Amino acid sequence: MSAQQATTGQLRPDGSKVAPHPLDQLSIEESDYAREVILNARGSKVAINFRSIFVDEPPKQELSRFLDIENAGRLTSHTPRPARVAKVQYDVIRDDRQHEYMESCVDVGSGNETQQRVVEKMHQAALTTHEFREFSEACVESPIFKKAVAEFDLPKGFVVAIDPWPYGGPDPSEVAPRYTQGLCFARDTRNGNEDSNHYGYPLPIIPIMDTYSKEIVRIDRLATGGKEDGLAYGTHKRDILSHCSPSEYVPELLSQPLRTDVKPLNVTQPEGPSFNVDGSLVEWQKWRFRVGFNPREGATLHDVRYDGRSILYRLSLSEMTVPYGDPRPPFQRKQAFDFGDAGAGRAANNLALGCDCLGTIKYFDAVLTEPDGKASLSKNVVCLHEQDNGIGWKHTNFRTSRAVVTRLRELVVQFIITLANYEYIFAYKLDQAGGITVETRATGIVSVVNIDPGKTSPWGNVVSAGALAQNHQHLFCIRIDPAIDGLNNTIVAEESLPMPMSKEINPYGSGYEVRQTPIKTSQYLDASPWTNMTVKMTNPSKLNPVSGKPVAYKFIPSASQLLLAHPDSIMAKRAQFATHHVWVTKYKDGELWAGGEFTNQSQKEIDGVSDAVARNENTENDDVVVWNVFGLTHNPRVEDWPVMPVEIHQLHLRPADFFSANPAIDVPGSKNTASVLAPSGSCCESGSVQEAPASHMQGTGPDFDPKSKL
Amino acid sequence: MSAQQATTGQLRPDGSKVAPHPLDQLSIEESDYAREVILNARGSKVAINFRSIFVDEPPKQELSRFLDIENAGRLTSHTPRPARVAKVQYDVIRDDRQHEYMESCVDVGSGNETQQRVVEKMHQAALTTHEFREFSEACVESPIFKKAVAEFDLPKGFVVAIDPWPYGGPDPSEVAPRYTQGLCFARDTRNGNEDSNHYGYPLPIIPIMDTYSKEIVRIDRLATGGKEDGLAYGTHKRDILSHCSPSEYVPELLSQPLRTDVKPLNVTQPEGPSFNVDGSLVEWQKWRFRVGFNPREGATLHDVRYDGRSILYRLSLSEMTVPYGDPRPPFQRKQAFDFGDAGAGRAANNLALGCDCLGTIKYFDAVLTEPDGKASLSKNVVCLHEQDNGIGWKHTNFRTSRAVVTRLRELVVQFIITLANYEYIFAYKLDQAGGITVETRATGIVSVVNIDPGKTSPWGNVVSAGALAQNHQHLFCIRIDPAIDGLNNTIVAEESLPMPMSKEINPYGSGYEVRQTPIKTSQYLDASPWTNMTVKMTNPSKLNPVSGKPVAYKFIPSASQLLLAHPDSIMAKRAQFATHHVWVTKYKDGELWAGGEFTNQSQKEIDGVSDAVARNENTENDDVVVWNVFGLTHNPRVEDWPVMPVEIHQLHLRPADFFSANPAIDVPGSKNTASVLAPSGSCCESGSVQEAPASHMQGTGPDFDPKSKL
Repeated sequence: MSAQQATTGQLRPDGSKVAPHPLDQLSIEESDYAREVILNARGSKVAINFRSIFVDEPPKQELSRFLDIENAGRLTSHTPRPARVAKVQYDVIRDDRQHEYMESCVDVGSGNETQQRVVEKMHQAALTTHEFREFSEACVESPIFKKAVAEFDLPKGFVVAIDPWPYGGPDPSEVAPRYTQGLCFARDTRNGNEDSNHYGYPLPIIPIMDTYSKEIVRIDRLATGGKEDGLAYGTHKRDILSHCSPSEYVPELLSQPLRTDVKPLNVTQPEGPSFNVDGSLVEWQKWRFRVGFNPREGATLHDVRYDGRSILYRLSLSEMTVPYGDPRPPFQRKQAFDFGDAGAGRAANNLALGCDCLGTIKYFDAVLTEPDGKASLSKNVVCLHEQDNGIGWKHTNFRTSRAVVTRLRELVVQFIITLANYEYIFAYKLDQAGGITVETRATGIVSVVNIDPGKTSPWGNVVSAGALAQNHQHLFCIRIDPAIDGLNNTIVAEESLPMPMSKEINPYGSGYEVRQTPIKTSQYLDASPWTNMTVKMTNPSKLNPVSGKPVAYKFIPSASQLLLAHPDSIMAKRAQFATHHVWVTKYKDGELWAGGEFTNQSQKEIDGVSDAVARNENTENDDVVVWNVFGLTHNPRVEDWPVMPVEIHQLHLRPADFFSANPAIDVPGSKNTASVLAPSGSCCESGSVQEAPASHMQGTGPDFDPKSKL
Repeated sequence: MSAQQATTGQLRPDGSKVAPHPLDQLSIEESDYAREVILNARGSKVAINFRSIFVDEPPKQELSRFLDIENAGRLTSHTPRPARVAKVQYDVIRDDRQHEYMESCVDVGSGNETQQRVVEKMHQAALTTHEFREFSEACVESPIFKKAVAEFDLPKGFVVAIDPWPYGGPDPSEVAPRYTQGLCFARDTRNGNEDSNHYGYPLPIIPIMDTYSKEIVRIDRLATGGKEDGLAYGTHKRDILSHCSPSEYVPELLSQPLRTDVKPLNVTQPEGPSFNVDGSLVEWQKWRFRVGFNPREGATLHDVRYDGRSILYRLSLSEMTVPYGDPRPPFQRKQAFDFGDAGAGRAANNLALGCDCLGTIKYFDAVLTEPDGKASLSKNVVCLHEQDNGIGWKHTNFRTSRAVVTRLRELVVQFIITLANYEYIFAYKLDQAGGITVETRATGIVSVVNIDPGKTSPWGNVVSAGALAQNHQHLFCIRIDPAIDGLNNTIVAEESLPMPMSKEINPYGSGYEVRQTPIKTSQYLDASPWTNMTVKMTNPSKLNPVSGKPVAYKFIPSASQLLLAHPDSIMAKRAQFATHHVWVTKYKDGELWAGGEFTNQSQKEIDGVSDAVARNENTENDDVVVWNVFGLTHNPRVEDWPVMPVEIHQLHLRPADFFSANPAIDVPGSKNTASVLAPSGSCCESGSVQEAPASHMQGTGPDFDPKSKL
């Protein structure tokens, strides 16, 4: 395959090729070509184990120049285009045992390997789905694992199901090679249903695998005690599952019938959707942006503009960590970094029409990487649709009873990831009023461990007989790379503060002060609800023509609980990003990951957002990045079992003197003609009213005409 | 009309009468009968000015006994029913000038006036829409008002539009009779459209009316200065509006065309809604509750049960206050209590099909009171409908790629109020997972005052030329009267706390503690996000069979900013409820209003929630009430003009070990067949995929069968 072929993107109807957009994912051809380049470059004396091949986003200076030309409508076939570069992540295996983790950049236009890096041994690459798959195979072959399982009398018909997990952060005293650990459960095969829920039958053992040699090197034992046992193991018994019970959730195995009174609720768009999609480009209601996708972050938004004006350069979920609050070893290592350890893109669900959203849906696919390095298409990993979010704005003129009311239409870019037992639903929502919401929903099956019969624990809640759902936290980081009417922005912390009572300034004590503090150098901020602390991303060079204030977008960081682990713990050291709500840093190419590039098996956060802040760089009227951290302290409820109802969190980015009026003021308030009245009950005749009747509030006295009355 | 007639409710098909439910609003007949009783009782020597007639909810002891019988299905025609009592609020006018405000209770069964109260002169009843109407008439007739207006040269074709407001809290030095004040604006009549927006043309005068004599007694002058002027008046000019500009929002007056690319989005329920409504009774998805409505609170929920189990006795919006943060007099009196000063029920919009919600809608009417005391029907003041809120729960078995995903269906009880310039949208939302959400949306037109040309102000934002939108707060209080499996409940504050690192207890620093603090006596709590403080409403006498913990519902109080006004200010004294996030009180019949019964023109909160707490009563395993306060500090954006996009706040009540599993686990995950694929773009072929393809994540190694392998 020639380099020329590799760079081509899509076919035009006439058979000619459309150059890919710099923010497009690699095509299958581009990815496979980069693989070939690396195979050739490393030579035949080594084996290559590919991890990921994905587009390396161009340097910002180069890309933003291109985007400016593109957005100005001045793109021609002569416009210089940023090189199409594939980032290739792979292990080089020598003598069948020495693994070296490498990252290369391959210019798929020229075929050159433009960068090459042998990653320091202290770092571990993210786990791949392939490595996860190998784990159970290794357990099945392992004598020490078999022996450990044999210590238990499992009920007839039960098999052991093993969920691979990242190893977490080893203790400094431990010399840990690349490890994978596994949480073990038993699955009842007697119902003949492979989806019978094994999580209700936890086994108190964790096999540890040397990930490279694929050997089970150790079995960790888990305590099964309750509050009376402290750190002690409790009373392990051979009949470890005798007090456990089924926890089915697939409908055919439920012990109760499905409810039958949920009538269909359909969302239809008889004239089609209001959006247009062309490759990665989405246009909708004055919004224009690109959807990116990569194995680590999943879906990302780029070059987000409204009515031609730039708002964000890039918006992404950067990292999350889930530390478990059970102090009993080895749970100090029960801490997932779902983006850095595994990869949200790799874990993305393939979505199905009519299941994951309603209405008129557009799906996006992803190009992912097989262990042999070949590209494969993962279908429908991102969905795009419109939805209604209730009233957008309303005013009723009480003099005339004239009500003008509009709906709040949203465009949703959604993806869903599964990490063993657990699910996260991530959505970027754009609305007609210029708002951007980043939503996370936590669902799936909470992680449980075995607990002795009749005991309760301070470290969690018994959600099913014998199953202790451990207390834990979810700490998320959203990376916001603003471009408020340009790349040079200043972050301002705005606080509303009480004022002293004073005859001169505040005679009745009714006043309050709004104080603005520009963030001049890189630093962190904490949520401050008592002062209504609001983070404004401003462009100090551009003033709003109405208010005279710098154009801005703002958000109020949620005052959610941050990391609870002790500051001296490994858990805390490797998740410094999770110790503050807001980080403001100077932009640096490639600095995308709040917890650092390498989280898997890390002992501390390296080159994460705390290190970026420590550079103490200028952030005033400069190219800045804002990172928002929020958390969900999850002390499980019985209602979270067997699959938990969604826990929802939203970050709202809203214009603040960015526009010169409500941008949704031109949304038509037309009446929805498909809405109907519910059939009248036995008693209520309001069912016949089709029009809003005269208001009870209607009318004041006359307006006063100063001309006529004086 | 006989007493017998008055108590009857609805007609059965056979013509016989159905007794009204104790929680039903008064019928028109009942209300009119109560009016007659009062007219007769007061005699012909006085004039009566009726304010409100509405059902007086029965004492809790009596009503809960009735509800228990009803919910047990043991209701017969012999079951003793609480008396139907009308509360009648009215002025008695002697000699055409002496107003005495009275409240009477009339048993509409017996015709007896069972209670009678002459309200102390220090209190002022809420303003009625009738009083609002009289205000403009008084201005038009007032010589001093005419003179004040004549100080300005209004542009040709402009008339003065006056918005009546409550007077706010007078200074202690002021002897204030019953007053109403008015905010003045000018309306451009030249476009011939009565809905031309007058708020863009603010006039710096406030006429004050003696509400009883209907005489304008004074004109307050408003400062028009900027930050350079301090408290000084600024530079009033005769051409006070010459620097102002139109601020139209009705579509026919907009300077820009409406957007044309919003394609219809319809919600249809081909098999009808999933709810059943019978009078005030609503049944939906295992939920069963009553919708109440009264002139002060608007819609209320009563006797809220899930699957037959009691959760709430009563749920209501109790009060809100909107203090303005501009320290310049007379804005220390710019503070509305929208429930106590005016009444959310009286201000409720008459809703229109296809405008205020989508889908299949059921409307409820209200019986309100005309100034002559006669009942009138206000149509469609509350709407009820189902909506989809995205994914409810999902789990994908990564071994088999089987995804089970359900939607989160919600039932929404919504009402919308207009208070002069501003709108609030209130909604109670119940969901299939046992959750109850109370949502507030703030919209409408922000309150503006005139500001001199070219100036800016620390007290607000210039949102339109010459129009300063003053900084203000909205502080809401939701009253939650829990009945968690019965009336005797204990409120528990649950906090998640860091633990010291210790070899014995927390060797790796990974643990955290969950601490429960029962609230034993009435008191307030503040939101504590740093400890994830969660308020649990528990029934200590009933333990969850799975976890062994008391059954409970919980909420996390939002750490929103509380009242900013100085503690010594009148603003703060009259809104003590707004100084803490959570109040826990012992239940007392009739104690419904967080800011006290009389807020209009109050100088301090009397018999509000702070006084209830001060009783220092037992709240452990007792009949308790929880009050949740949250706020929105609103420093207006230019985007909030001319009508602001909704600002949304939600309180989530969720079961916490109330059920023995996820109550939504029986929600069918059936595929929505009305969802369709968006038309394919030029490039993407994923449009043809109808089924979820095999997952990229699919498969681990084999499960391990201990029997066969050992």
